[in-house]
Amino acid sequence: MEKGIQKLKGLLAEVVDLQRSAAVLAWEQQTYMPPGGASARAEQLATLGGLAHRMFVTDEIGGLLAELEQSAGDWGYDSDEACLLRFIKRRYERERRIPTDLVAELARTTAIAQEVWVQARKAADYPMFKPYLRDVLSLRRQQAECLAPYDHIYDPLLDEYEPEMKTAEVRAMFASIKDDLVELVGTISERADAVRDEALHGDFDIERQRVFGLEVAQKFGYDLERGRQDEAPHPFCTHFSSDDVRITTRFDPTFLPSALFGTLHETGHALYEQGVDPRLARSGMDTGISLGVHESQSRLWENLIGRSRPFWRYFFPQLQAVFPDALANLDLESFYRAINRSAPSLIRVEADEVTYNLHVIIRFELELDLLTGMLDIDELPGAWNEKYQRYLGISPENDAEGVLQDIHWSMGAIGYFATYSIGNLLSVQLFNCAREALPNLDADIAAGDFDSLLGWLRDNIHHHGSKFTPRELVQRVTGGDMDARPYMAYLREKYSDIYDL
Amino acid sequence: MEKGIQKLKGLLAEVVDLQRSAAVLAWEQQTYMPPGGASARAEQLATLGGLAHRMFVTDEIGGLLAELEQSAGDWGYDSDEACLLRFIKRRYERERRIPTDLVAELARTTAIAQEVWVQARKAADYPMFKPYLRDVLSLRRQQAECLAPYDHIYDPLLDEYEPEMKTAEVRAMFASIKDDLVELVGTISERADAVRDEALHGDFDIERQRVFGLEVAQKFGYDLERGRQDEAPHPFCTHFSSDDVRITTRFDPTFLPSALFGTLHETGHALYEQGVDPRLARSGMDTGISLGVHESQSRLWENLIGRSRPFWRYFFPQLQAVFPDALANLDLESFYRAINRSAPSLIRVEADEVTYNLHVIIRFELELDLLTGMLDIDELPGAWNEKYQRYLGISPENDAEGVLQDIHWSMGAIGYFATYSIGNLLSVQLFNCAREALPNLDADIAAGDFDSLLGWLRDNIHHHGSKFTPRELVQRVTGGDMDARPYMAYLREKYSDIYDL
Repeated sequence: MEKGIQKLKGLLAEVVDLQRSAAVLAWEQQTYMPPGGASARAEQLATLGGLAHRMFVTDEIGGLLAELEQSAGDWGYDSDEACLLRFIKRRYERERRIPTDLVAELARTTAIAQEVWVQARKAADYPMFKPYLRDVLSLRRQQAECLAPYDHIYDPLLDEYEPEMKTAEVRAMFASIKDDLVELVGTISERADAVRDEALHGDFDIERQRVFGLEVAQKFGYDLERGRQDEAPHPFCTHFSSDDVRITTRFDPTFLPSALFGTLHETGHALYEQGVDPRLARSGMDTGISLGVHESQSRLWENLIGRSRPFWRYFFPQLQAVFPDALANLDLESFYRAINRSAPSLIRVEADEVTYNLHVIIRFELELDLLTGMLDIDELPGAWNEKYQRYLGISPENDAEGVLQDIHWSMGAIGYFATYSIGNLLSVQLFNCAREALPNLDADIAAGDFDSLLGWLRDNIHHHGSKFTPRELVQRVTGGDMDARPYMAYLREKYSDIYDL
Repeated sequence: MEKGIQKLKGLLAEVVDLQRSAAVLAWEQQTYMPPGGASARAEQLATLGGLAHRMFVTDEIGGLLAELEQSAGDWGYDSDEACLLRFIKRRYERERRIPTDLVAELARTTAIAQEVWVQARKAADYPMFKPYLRDVLSLRRQQAECLAPYDHIYDPLLDEYEPEMKTAEVRAMFASIKDDLVELVGTISERADAVRDEALHGDFDIERQRVFGLEVAQKFGYDLERGRQDEAPHPFCTHFSSDDVRITTRFDPTFLPSALFGTLHETGHALYEQGVDPRLARSGMDTGISLGVHESQSRLWENLIGRSRPFWRYFFPQLQAVFPDALANLDLESFYRAINRSAPSLIRVEADEVTYNLHVIIRFELELDLLTGMLDIDELPGAWNEKYQRYLGISPENDAEGVLQDIHWSMGAIGYFATYSIGNLLSVQLFNCAREALPNLDADIAAGDFDSLLGWLRDNIHHHGSKFTPRELVQRVTGGDMDARPYMAYLREKYSDIYDL
């Protein structure tokens, strides 16, 4: 048994090395690669992705899994070994059904599609991107078909990002919040004048933004000996091991919150990855369990901390010192309200907490329609704009601030967006637990001390990596299932206060 | 036959993708990777290196090579196919004798050793680096043993960088120039006062250095749509395809020539890689044939162009405009002499053309002694310093400017240094041919027009990639073998003029 598990770990380590190497290449493509490199990079990513898949779905690994399962009972349920077997078996059964050629083809196609997306977004030229999106969608549909039968074709794609979650659950979750959100957006818009954010628009030196953002990130606990920040057209976090966790940022010299909250958001992801138990290294479990749980961490640090009063009690004087021209005459309370101003807007990553989930719901609904064939790629921009009008009362002036704004579809990440809302919901549930466990939390935060919070998150979430399913993890921490009510209660309380509703 | 060659190309393409992916990871390690990333990066490089090897030395590739060889006569000797068969067969027979585990172990060990080298050099702490150097040396010895029998244990290592070259030839080549070089160094040192370079020491803004260097590089023909420059502790050139060729530079704000000539040097390498025939992509032949030929290109652009009068006739006014404080009062002739000042110095990459080869000879001799066991790792710094005293009349004050100055040994590149001198020799031989073919060359250069030269190099050298062995290539271009005499004649003429000998 010991020999078998060592053998399995050795085989998995090589697969993980290939996946992480591909992550380095993908990160480099987003940050530094010259345009000419795209075509060779696509081939390299196809080869790495194909090999990682081929080396994972072998009979040898299948045999080891079957053999080890016999005696899995000897390990405790929570042991690294038992968790590894459950985790790998689930993934193996899924991946084994997808042909390696399809995996490689998707890697190749999306590497090119991402380059085209960057150009198309710059030029606000949807027709330039359309044929690539068509290819990506077709490949993702083929992947889903390999995993049939399913209740909904979105299920197997969602499962890749949020294991065990079903489309029906997401629909129900959205149904439970959508009307309330639309109502809250309406109520706030009647009181729109109560909060102004002009002070956040102006002239904000990028280098100063960078330094301040990284200072906060380090205060949170982001270890730059084991990470770094770079610029990229789309902010993201990636990791090549728990000792090498990168974030990227997009700076806007005319709007302060963009890079600042983007940095805090990605730092939340990075803290999760840096906190994974080193014993899990190269097992495949050495990463966050799902994008929903991941997003709970980024949103917790971005919003529940980064847009809270205690946080700015500590940091606002420092920020004022960095940008005296813009902020010296602003008081803390006005700043707090400004960064929490809620209003319908076009760009998801810059949306406030109230409207954010509506951006996600729009994408989720569009993806379902694209996958089922209800919506054709040709009609996508129109459908996008129509939904923005219906849910948020606004329409993009061009596709760059509309259907082309997100990188996800170019990456093949169809089935991904729902996890952003799952993350929002979980962030509040998990934070409420942290609050209960840490009675001095607000005082700590107001003193710029995040050790207790990070320690709690590490112990209860980060440390486990992918040992437990999202459901198991939420159950362990909260004692129950994912629940939208705490999130809605949080929103109502926070915004009633800010807008005096 | 057509089917067989396509099959072979497909298999090779995957191997090349893995090697180039490893090159991305290695580049990233030198440029951006945080310190914490080293250990996982080493595993990733070991996995990529091991896999590339394992997938290359298969029976399948061996079988295809044997099968295709039967009918190779149908292709012309110069055809891509015939060249590929010769090139791959030679490499296959070599690699097949080396165990994959040894390849992976060397990749892992050198990835770590490079990190330690950076730290050790910073701290001028040879004992910190010593155990890693011992491991690297031992692994390289083991590799050489796999390739026995040999005339000299250095042979199989040299062959990796300079196919078909023998240690005895290098010895003979060095013997033919060493005494003359030492004599020339002596003659020049008697006239040391004839050339002064104080103007090159001072305050040179790094950003301006970068911009000027890249402008020259682009004038040479370096295409930044298919390349880029980054900073690294050791200047180098690497490529991930002929459409993605990177250079790195090390800037010294107090000494102008360091980054400037470093940039021109690496640009010379980059032009070679960018000029390879796109038809050779992913074949393994889509790169320069040897490090000696590669170095002939970098030295040609760095020295034969970049330290020549016609070049500065065009560029000196521009450089004066960039650094008016330091250069406005200098005349072209004084500047030309300053950048060609020859004097014994400690750092190889900054050595002048006369002393440069002595730096190489020192390393070559030390490597031979280390490999044969005549010299122990413990005695290396002493032996290094003793040789610098003997050949150049100077001694380093610490190991950072002595035995720790080069990255090569930490990378496992034992057997590499000789190719620097091979490159110097070839650069003059090849440039003389270009001169003959291009009667207006000096006038073109003085007009800032490098198209004719680059075109000639592309047609005669770059385009071929690795289709011909170094010997074949030199024969095709010069009609003869490598020859040290043109190089020595060039040095004597140039320095007699500058120092009025």
